[in-house]
Amino acid sequence: MVKPLDNKFSAQIKQKIDLKTKPLGALGQLECVAFQLVNIFSQHTSDAEFLSKKWVVIAPQLIVFAGDHGIASQGVSIAPSEVTGQMVANFAAGGAAINVLCRQFGWQLSVVDCGILNVPEADLGVISQRLGNITQAFHEYEAMSEAQLEQGLTLGARILTLQSQKGANVYAFGEMGIGNTSSAAAIFSALSGLSPEETVGKGTGVSGEVVIKKQQLLAQALVLHESKLTNARNILRCLGGFEICQMVGAMQQAARLQAVIVVDGFIATAAAMIVIALSPNAQQYMIFAHCSGEQAHAKMLEYLNVKPLLNLGLRLGEGSGAALTLPIMQSALALYNDMASFEDAQVTQVVQGE
Amino acid sequence: MVKPLDNKFSAQIKQKIDLKTKPLGALGQLECVAFQLVNIFSQHTSDAEFLSKKWVVIAPQLIVFAGDHGIASQGVSIAPSEVTGQMVANFAAGGAAINVLCRQFGWQLSVVDCGILNVPEADLGVISQRLGNITQAFHEYEAMSEAQLEQGLTLGARILTLQSQKGANVYAFGEMGIGNTSSAAAIFSALSGLSPEETVGKGTGVSGEVVIKKQQLLAQALVLHESKLTNARNILRCLGGFEICQMVGAMQQAARLQAVIVVDGFIATAAAMIVIALSPNAQQYMIFAHCSGEQAHAKMLEYLNVKPLLNLGLRLGEGSGAALTLPIMQSALALYNDMASFEDAQVTQVVQGE
Repeated sequence: MVKPLDNKFSAQIKQKIDLKTKPLGALGQLECVAFQLVNIFSQHTSDAEFLSKKWVVIAPQLIVFAGDHGIASQGVSIAPSEVTGQMVANFAAGGAAINVLCRQFGWQLSVVDCGILNVPEADLGVISQRLGNITQAFHEYEAMSEAQLEQGLTLGARILTLQSQKGANVYAFGEMGIGNTSSAAAIFSALSGLSPEETVGKGTGVSGEVVIKKQQLLAQALVLHESKLTNARNILRCLGGFEICQMVGAMQQAARLQAVIVVDGFIATAAAMIVIALSPNAQQYMIFAHCSGEQAHAKMLEYLNVKPLLNLGLRLGEGSGAALTLPIMQSALALYNDMASFEDAQVTQVVQGE
Repeated sequence: MVKPLDNKFSAQIKQKIDLKTKPLGALGQLECVAFQLVNIFSQHTSDAEFLSKKWVVIAPQLIVFAGDHGIASQGVSIAPSEVTGQMVANFAAGGAAINVLCRQFGWQLSVVDCGILNVPEADLGVISQRLGNITQAFHEYEAMSEAQLEQGLTLGARILTLQSQKGANVYAFGEMGIGNTSSAAAIFSALSGLSPEETVGKGTGVSGEVVIKKQQLLAQALVLHESKLTNARNILRCLGGFEICQMVGAMQQAARLQAVIVVDGFIATAAAMIVIALSPNAQQYMIFAHCSGEQAHAKMLEYLNVKPLLNLGLRLGEGSGAALTLPIMQSALALYNDMASFEDAQVTQVVQGE
């Protein structure tokens, strides 16, 4: 069960932000992030501790889930499914974008094989939580069985619990899986009722023709599974991927532990939408990192009524957008902890005109 | 004189970015930033050095210029002019937002008194480059004299030269000055031909009535000085502020030294527009940090045809938006330096569909 946030300190948090030496609201979204983070971090804090404590991100964890997709054999991506495994090896060797960003910012990175075509070499240090070699192509079959779904949710929660032993209070999730923008778009269509024409984009860079093919496959899938797509669990099972399923399990567990969940791009937001459909309270723990270059991601964020922190046109996945938000979250907390108040600094407190 | 960028390595820089293990363009604006930074940093590099060098930000300098504005006495701000000096003391004591952000990211911060109402105490460590106590109210007089303008440009360049001895290759500029959104809006109107209705906003949070008053004062000023507002130098002199004038001088000098200029929000962009009007090549060295909450800032960025890195609704000034971009620039460089290529990582190179 995901608990709603207890807002016992929320008035104090807001007042502290408002009395900083700046016009009201002048730090924009940094004020919202500071409020949300301190509100989450202070859930189990006593009144005395609340007043004296400095709030910081501790041992932030970024977990990349990888999975292969049966739908990829229909030619919906610029790359063949083999690239999923090659990129997992690249993550393990430290050469991918997400490795560079995690080293720069201090994220602890873990890579989970949720079920990819080519089993990674044992010595790569990839965490093995395989649900199979590849999902079934969802335009003809359910992507996974009920047993695979259940196991995936359990294993996703398990890896989160394992990482939580490092004392982390912030988690981000990335993914790798050739074909997974098709899966994410299908999930979005099923949850929102938007047509594939609205939810399908170019993924990592396919042509206009391939976009039309993706739309047709999705339309076919939505008809095929129509009777089952009445709840989020079935939507995930019929249309999801092994990596999306485990990400859902991990996000649910992070929300149960009342930790911060940093939601990355298009695929991660599809997972977050499933989590929110299953446990609406979970959204209180989520920070939306960025708006991806994938065209329907802006629509997802609008659907959830959230404003992301960044909009840099990224469309890479791997958790790269989420990784980039760590210094922004740290800024928000540092401003909350360390900026002087009007009283401290003997600055005339200014009031807004309306 | 500001030299245009020599693009001798630009094809190599672009190729290196394109061969990284990611779909073409998938790192969005980070790729543009990496390209621009490496192109600037490599201006005086030999071919051999270019291939082996790792590109990093060195000793980044953030200079905050403070000045008071005669127009403030017309009640165009939520705060009285005394607050400029109080905030300068807050900067000196380390309690303001910009202090927190500079400490977090490693910017070296300097604060320059360009002419504020209350002279800062000598022991505060504020750099004194005073052009007067306060500008003249520009709806009735020229804001400053030709001699003040000339001295301001010289002193702005001087502080930049002084800081450059620390070996910096990146400079950001912030400002503090009650009334300076009025001055920046007036500069924007004079340069662009847009009416004050289009360029005036709420500043730090004034009411709708005060916005109308600001618009009327600007309209009066634009008529009063009309015959002189035919070149950027006169626009700066008649409508600018002491801090805006010195910022212009500093930006010009940074461009002459072929260093990176990080342009902050509404006031800093007004200064940048003057610099570009005087030396169009200077724009090649500019990175636009963020889109401010001040309504006309988006129009300025559109006028310059640039896309900023952040859009967090900040409207604080002080260089706060610019400060927040340092980790993003560092990410762009780290990805350029350290990400594996398709060949390095033995990943199948994927090509775009169109």
